[in-house]
Amino acid sequence: MELTFLGTSSAIPSKHRNHSSIGLKAFGEVILFDCGEGTQRQLIFAKISPMKVTKIFISHLHGDHVLGLPGLIESMGFRGRTDPLNIYGPPGIFNFEIAINNLGFNNKTFKTTFHEVEGGTIIDNDEYIVQAIKTKHNVYNLSYSIIEKKKPRFLREKAIELGVKPGPDFGRLHNGETVRVNNKIVSPGQVLGDDREGIKISYSGDTKPADELVEFVKNSNLLIHESTYEQADEDKAIKHYHSTGKQAAEIAKKAHVDRLILTHISSRYKKVDKIKEEAREIFKNTDLAYDFLKIDIVS
Amino acid sequence: MELTFLGTSSAIPSKHRNHSSIGLKAFGEVILFDCGEGTQRQLIFAKISPMKVTKIFISHLHGDHVLGLPGLIESMGFRGRTDPLNIYGPPGIFNFEIAINNLGFNNKTFKTTFHEVEGGTIIDNDEYIVQAIKTKHNVYNLSYSIIEKKKPRFLREKAIELGVKPGPDFGRLHNGETVRVNNKIVSPGQVLGDDREGIKISYSGDTKPADELVEFVKNSNLLIHESTYEQADEDKAIKHYHSTGKQAAEIAKKAHVDRLILTHISSRYKKVDKIKEEAREIFKNTDLAYDFLKIDIVS
Repeated sequence: MELTFLGTSSAIPSKHRNHSSIGLKAFGEVILFDCGEGTQRQLIFAKISPMKVTKIFISHLHGDHVLGLPGLIESMGFRGRTDPLNIYGPPGIFNFEIAINNLGFNNKTFKTTFHEVEGGTIIDNDEYIVQAIKTKHNVYNLSYSIIEKKKPRFLREKAIELGVKPGPDFGRLHNGETVRVNNKIVSPGQVLGDDREGIKISYSGDTKPADELVEFVKNSNLLIHESTYEQADEDKAIKHYHSTGKQAAEIAKKAHVDRLILTHISSRYKKVDKIKEEAREIFKNTDLAYDFLKIDIVS
Repeated sequence: MELTFLGTSSAIPSKHRNHSSIGLKAFGEVILFDCGEGTQRQLIFAKISPMKVTKIFISHLHGDHVLGLPGLIESMGFRGRTDPLNIYGPPGIFNFEIAINNLGFNNKTFKTTFHEVEGGTIIDNDEYIVQAIKTKHNVYNLSYSIIEKKKPRFLREKAIELGVKPGPDFGRLHNGETVRVNNKIVSPGQVLGDDREGIKISYSGDTKPADELVEFVKNSNLLIHESTYEQADEDKAIKHYHSTGKQAAEIAKKAHVDRLILTHISSRYKKVDKIKEEAREIFKNTDLAYDFLKIDIVS
């Protein structure tokens, strides 16, 4: 899985940070979390085809998290897209759908389906589960987890021992098909070991510290949590229903996640290291996102 | 006057070209022509304060020319703007206003007034006139001219001869005030010469070649005309109500403008020089816009 931060600013963008969006390449799909203004161009810069985006999960209906949607949808149409697009968001998303349709450019060549989500399991297919939970912002905010299903570990050396050559046959065995090697049949059972845990990635959206998030993001390989403010501005964080880096780190620590990446950084700070340092005092494996930061996630 | 191209792509943006917008610093204002998605951040890159934008002239209501408006307005509010903002656009602009208000984030600290324009003189103040004319796109498109009023030429050497020092006193005399130099009065009449012609800048918006534009843009110091296509793709230009570079140059030539700058370039072309070359065969003083191209305009 490859995750790319497409925008890491809070409400006001800056020279270095665009509005919120995260792109996840996984399961043969591109999945977006939030879609702030300019996301379609950030995708171009990141060399991720907008045409491959299958699902967009919106945390909440503030402009800096959704204003890239109408332009992205329009450009997909201009490019002749025919694949359906699914967009998930909190209550209010249907009114938002109506509003963006009323903007006046609906020459769509493909079906866009909006889904209103209050929380719970949204997607449960052969490969992964997506869950959402309402957290604590001044509008309805959803935090999301995407959890890969358990898969048997592929015993690479065993396969080579049995004469299978690395390449397409590896994939076939991995997917449960038998293959033929030198007139001998090799079956998946011979080369698949115990189940390995699936990867779990969680994203907070905008929220002040939310105890309910601890259980929800538990054991994530990666937690992406907003950290709009430094600890010295905790009063502003409280007032605007946001978190400091330190508060995000406390969630990460309690939830025993592997790694924390902070995002949604206020443009008020010329230097952002303090947010990271304050978080690292609580949870060591913390980094601060920047636009186009790419993360490979392996379990 | 200083003009900056903030976005020069057609419908689909590219790595190098953002959606349409032009910023004009003049008369102590920042005036925008069109406001495609991402314009607020292009302003940041161009070091033009969004807070100084006073008027926005929208050519037509296609997404690539207007989708930057809601985010720009929202960010102005976040920055605590109190100055009013005036937005001018073609019939349909009121519905667009309603649609963007329905997007759901209206925490505005300032007054935004939308003005529906069919054509004619829109603004006529002490310093300049703005005129609009309906041209030929598949939706109602306005081309605009902004025309500086005639002003007496300031006789710099005469002023120095009379003992006036370059600096604030120059400005005062220029603006019709008397100044005192070594107990002598110097009056504007002593240092102002004949009227000089005001600068005229014209912008086509999106249009196929429009004969009515020739008279409208006549004698412009600068004509900014769309040139979505190369001449070889004239059939596409006709189909989509756009112009080729050559066609834009024909308008420039007939209208006796000083200079032509081509913009709104299709992302289909890896190399764009052909559009410019084809135009230069017709009208020599032609350039192709690129994002953040800055032009100083003097009469």
